Amino acid sequence: MTKGSVALLGLGTMGRVLAERLLDAGHPVTVWNRTPGRDTALVERGARRAETVREAVTAATTVVTCLFDHASVRETLEPVGADLAGRTLVDLTTTTPNEARWLGGWAEEGGIEHLDGAIMATPSMIGAPEASLLYSGSAEAFGRHRTLFEVWGSATYDGADHGAASLFDLALLSGMYTMFTGFAHGAAMVTSAGVTAEEFAHRSARLLSAMTGVFPMTAKVIDEGDYTGPGQSLEWTATALDTIARASAEQGVSPGPIEMTRALVLAQIEAGYGNENSDRIYEELRAG
Amino acid sequence: MTKGSVALLGLGTMGRVLAERLLDAGHPVTVWNRTPGRDTALVERGARRAETVREAVTAATTVVTCLFDHASVRETLEPVGADLAGRTLVDLTTTTPNEARWLGGWAEEGGIEHLDGAIMATPSMIGAPEASLLYSGSAEAFGRHRTLFEVWGSATYDGADHGAASLFDLALLSGMYTMFTGFAHGAAMVTSAGVTAEEFAHRSARLLSAMTGVFPMTAKVIDEGDYTGPGQSLEWTATALDTIARASAEQGVSPGPIEMTRALVLAQIEAGYGNENSDRIYEELRAG
Repeated sequence: MTKGSVALLGLGTMGRVLAERLLDAGHPVTVWNRTPGRDTALVERGARRAETVREAVTAATTVVTCLFDHASVRETLEPVGADLAGRTLVDLTTTTPNEARWLGGWAEEGGIEHLDGAIMATPSMIGAPEASLLYSGSAEAFGRHRTLFEVWGSATYDGADHGAASLFDLALLSGMYTMFTGFAHGAAMVTSAGVTAEEFAHRSARLLSAMTGVFPMTAKVIDEGDYTGPGQSLEWTATALDTIARASAEQGVSPGPIEMTRALVLAQIEAGYGNENSDRIYEELRAG
Repeated sequence: MTKGSVALLGLGTMGRVLAERLLDAGHPVTVWNRTPGRDTALVERGARRAETVREAVTAATTVVTCLFDHASVRETLEPVGADLAGRTLVDLTTTTPNEARWLGGWAEEGGIEHLDGAIMATPSMIGAPEASLLYSGSAEAFGRHRTLFEVWGSATYDGADHGAASLFDLALLSGMYTMFTGFAHGAAMVTSAGVTAEEFAHRSARLLSAMTGVFPMTAKVIDEGDYTGPGQSLEWTATALDTIARASAEQGVSPGPIEMTRALVLAQIEAGYGNENSDRIYEELRAG
C-alpha cells in the first residue's frame, strides 16, 4: 500500500527528526525551510527539496508545519491558502490555544482540513512510544492519519476544539516546570547546609512521585467544587508555608517559590475560606 | 525486656497518635497537655496522666515534644531544664532548622541529650512504613532509640547538625507544595476549556511521576556547578514559559505560578547565562 505524501515545512531540530521518521516509514516527503541548507541529509535519504512553500504544499496531501511560532505559521501559509484547499494541515508549531483556534477558523474558511498538534517530547525521543503527541481539531483527519502519527510516538486525540491539544500540552508543561522549580528550591535549601543535591534528588523524587498519586483525589474535590471535606486546611497550610519560607530565608535561599503558593493560600483565607481545604488554591487561580 | 519509658508532651491530633503507637508497642507512656481533656482515651488505654510538665518529664527517660511551635517548646521546657538533665529530648514539633539548632545548643548546655525530629506523614499514616520520620542531633541517642522510632514509621538519621532533619523536611515539603500548585495551575487551564480536572490528573500524574526520574541528572549538574552541558537553554525555556503564561492569561487563569519560574529564568538570562541550561534557576534561588 502506498503511504500518504507529506510536505514538511520547517526544518529546525524537531522538524528534521519528524521528516526522518516519515522517511523511515516509507512516506514520500517533500521538505521546505525558510533559510536553505537544512535539508542536505534529508535529501540524501530520499526527501524531495521544494524551493518554495507553494511547491511543497502542492506536492502532498498532508502538510505538516513545525515553525518558530504562530506568526511564522501565518506568514508562511497565508500566501498559499488557495493551494491548501482540500488538503490536510497539521500544525505542530508551539502556539497558544487561541492561536490554534484562529488557525482552525482560517483553515475552515479556506476549505482546509486542520489538526493542531502539540509535541510532548524532545527531538531525541521522536519515534519512541514515550514521545507523546496530542492532536485536536478534525476527528476525521485524526482517524485517517493515526498510523502516520504513530510513526512519531503515541498519538492522543483531545477533541474538536482546535485549541485543546495546545491547552493540554501547556497545562501539563506548567505542572512540569513548576515541579522542577520546587525541586530546585528544595535542593537550594539543603545544599545551603552542605548536603549534596544528589542526596536530596533521590528522596525528593521518591516523595513527589508518590504524591502524584493524590492528584485524582484533588481533581475530584476540584470537579465537585466542595472544599469542606477532609484534608489539610488553608490555615494549617499557611502555617506550614510560613515555616518553610522562614527556614529558606534563614538559610539565605530565596523563598520565592514558597511565597508564590503562600500568596494563593492567604488570598483564599482572606476570602473567608481558612477552614476549608487547601485544594482551594485552584479557585484562586481560576479567579484570574 | 522492659521497654523504655516515654513522656509525651502535646496531645494534638499527631501527639495522640504518637502516644497510641507507643502504648501498642508496650512502652510505659506518661502524657501531658497544656489544656486538659485530650488524654481521656489514652489514659483508658494505660497511659499515665501528668498534671504538670515536671511530673511528666521526671516520669520518663525519653521526653518527646509535639507542640504547636518553637515558642511553645521553649515555654514548656525552659522551666524544667534542670529536670531534663541526663534524659533524652526528642522534639517532633515543626520548627525551622535554626530553631532546632537553638534547642540543640540549649540542651547541650543543660546536659540534655537532644534529637530534633521531623514527621513526613499525616497522623493517619503513623505506624505504617510509609510514614517517614527524620532525625538529627545526637547519633548515639538515635542508635539507642531506633527501635522505638520505628514504632511510628521509617526512621532516617540526617546527621549531627540539629537543624538537618528540619531542613530536609522543609526542603522536601517545599518541593511537594510547589508541585501541587503547578498541578492546580494546569488543572485551572484545562477546566477553563471544559475538560475535567480528573482527566487532567491522570495525565499530569503520569508525566510528573516520570519526570522525577530527571532529578538525579539535574542534581549532578547542580553539584558540579557546570551548566554548559546539554539540556534546554534558559533562552528556550523563557520562550516556552512565555507561551504558557500567555495561554493562561487568554483562558482567564492567573499565570502566577509560571510567572514565578519565569522571573527566575529571566534573572539568570539578564545575568548573561541565556545559552546555559535552565537548571541554573537553582543558582538564582541560592543567590537569595
